[in-house]
Amino acid sequence: MHILIIGAAGMVGRKLTNALVASGTLRGKSIGALTLADVVEPAAPEFSGDVKRIAIDMSAPGAAKTLVAGRPDVIFHLAAIVSGEAEMDFDKGYRINMDGTRALLEAIRHEGQREPWTPRLVFTSSIAVFGAPFPDAIPDEFFSTPLTSYGTQKAICELLLNDYSRRGFVDGIGIRLPTITIRPGKPNLAASGFFSNILREPLAGQEAILPVSRDVRHWFASPRAAVGFLLHAAELDTAPMGWRRTVSLPGLSATVGEEIEALRRVAGEKAVALIREEPDPAIIRMVDGWAKNFDTKRAEALGFKAEKTFDEIITAHIEDELGGRVG
Amino acid sequence: MHILIIGAAGMVGRKLTNALVASGTLRGKSIGALTLADVVEPAAPEFSGDVKRIAIDMSAPGAAKTLVAGRPDVIFHLAAIVSGEAEMDFDKGYRINMDGTRALLEAIRHEGQREPWTPRLVFTSSIAVFGAPFPDAIPDEFFSTPLTSYGTQKAICELLLNDYSRRGFVDGIGIRLPTITIRPGKPNLAASGFFSNILREPLAGQEAILPVSRDVRHWFASPRAAVGFLLHAAELDTAPMGWRRTVSLPGLSATVGEEIEALRRVAGEKAVALIREEPDPAIIRMVDGWAKNFDTKRAEALGFKAEKTFDEIITAHIEDELGGRVG
Repeated sequence: MHILIIGAAGMVGRKLTNALVASGTLRGKSIGALTLADVVEPAAPEFSGDVKRIAIDMSAPGAAKTLVAGRPDVIFHLAAIVSGEAEMDFDKGYRINMDGTRALLEAIRHEGQREPWTPRLVFTSSIAVFGAPFPDAIPDEFFSTPLTSYGTQKAICELLLNDYSRRGFVDGIGIRLPTITIRPGKPNLAASGFFSNILREPLAGQEAILPVSRDVRHWFASPRAAVGFLLHAAELDTAPMGWRRTVSLPGLSATVGEEIEALRRVAGEKAVALIREEPDPAIIRMVDGWAKNFDTKRAEALGFKAEKTFDEIITAHIEDELGGRVG
Repeated sequence: MHILIIGAAGMVGRKLTNALVASGTLRGKSIGALTLADVVEPAAPEFSGDVKRIAIDMSAPGAAKTLVAGRPDVIFHLAAIVSGEAEMDFDKGYRINMDGTRALLEAIRHEGQREPWTPRLVFTSSIAVFGAPFPDAIPDEFFSTPLTSYGTQKAICELLLNDYSRRGFVDGIGIRLPTITIRPGKPNLAASGFFSNILREPLAGQEAILPVSRDVRHWFASPRAAVGFLLHAAELDTAPMGWRRTVSLPGLSATVGEEIEALRRVAGEKAVALIREEPDPAIIRMVDGWAKNFDTKRAEALGFKAEKTFDEIITAHIEDELGGRVG
């Protein structure tokens, strides 16, 4: 079993690499080789099999061909320019998010035409393919009307993934991840960062800023759940999906107030006291256009699983990032 | 008023050119210049203003830049590789239908960045962006799950049109045309051709073959309605569309049996007797996956109009193609 991870240096890519190394198997086969690619060279995992680490811009001419030259059995494509940057830099967003993914699909098609080969491709799409106004819970059949260039690029990749799968060039599956919370590390500039910050920082004894009101509702899953989604997407039988190869994943629909109550239960009043409310009109406006809840029957029937409470999400963070201790 | 028509040599392109010349105005302004482009040089219209005729492959490097160099006020983009060919020739379909349209959008963006310019772009999309299973009438909010490469390419162009419009690079509108019936000229190899053949040929005293059963239902508009759609799309205020810039157009949902009854009323028993039933399993299978009916509230609110009976469609053909006489 040879696995290629594109975007292996990112937070989810690193956790996925570690999970694969810890398991040692995928799709019932022993993992013999890992190819880890990103725009910067991914760190070396503690793995006894073959490891190739590649620093590459996947949109550069020939890059996709280089990536698939080893004919991996499973490809995880996690690389993307994030929403904010894709909106700021129109060319870069299309080049990486759309052309990069298409180049990968084309490289797979051409390699498979040279000698038959149909790898499983797991593609991380986004709930940004949907645009407001939304129903109370977005169903599996909801139409794609993205309101950002990032969402447009992801929606286009979903269409390509369907068509390349239908034509038999690849065995593709796209997964629309909820907002991953609690993101480990330092606060970043993503507009959605506060959903993680108001839990992660108090759990570490630090102050955090809450820029929206407590009744804001959003859609969450933990980094641990994200890794579980990716592994399940690599394993499952795609035949029941037909040619609709992308699915909105299960998550937890919760308000900021519910996040904070879970924090109180797990880490006490002292932690909650570290959250400072500082309303930010720009963030309030943006968050207002984001999806709040999904009806994910299809993903559940396919066997995807996420957390059901914020207590579970916080506990996963304490176990996976804080060695089981609240500081 | 300078108008560019890409795909001007095709059946709809020629009729659109003639309608523009006959009217002499668009958007309340006198038409001073026409640029007619296609993969073969379009015929010269009888027009007193400036006419430029260009034979060009719009996917060739620099072609889109050449096309927009004259900074037309309104661009009609009708050029496409048809469904059957796009399914046979994967590369050609993507090159023309997707890359060609994107090159046009990019050329418009770059020309507008050189010096402000936001032309109206009318793009012909297709009901092939939808894939079975369908509800009884496909609503405006139905999701795009194309089952052909052609439908995938059109759906991608719709997403690009939305995003380029949202970013202010173009004032785009996409229109999903019903199956245009009665197509003038000789029977062609399109799987949908029989819908036209069984009317056009008997009206001209010729035999026609019906390869499906009379209860097959489909979605129709005349070539005259198609020209009306294009002109209206060039004229209307796009602001009420928001960033959902493509709309499914009104049409007539009718069965083959209803087509034939209309033929009987307009041209008599003698014409109907020229239809020979020869069931073709391949065509029957294909037609089964096609959309049969739409709920087009949104297009109607925007002012688009189509025929309400097959009698009107046949009468339009007799007037526009047969000089008012049934042969």
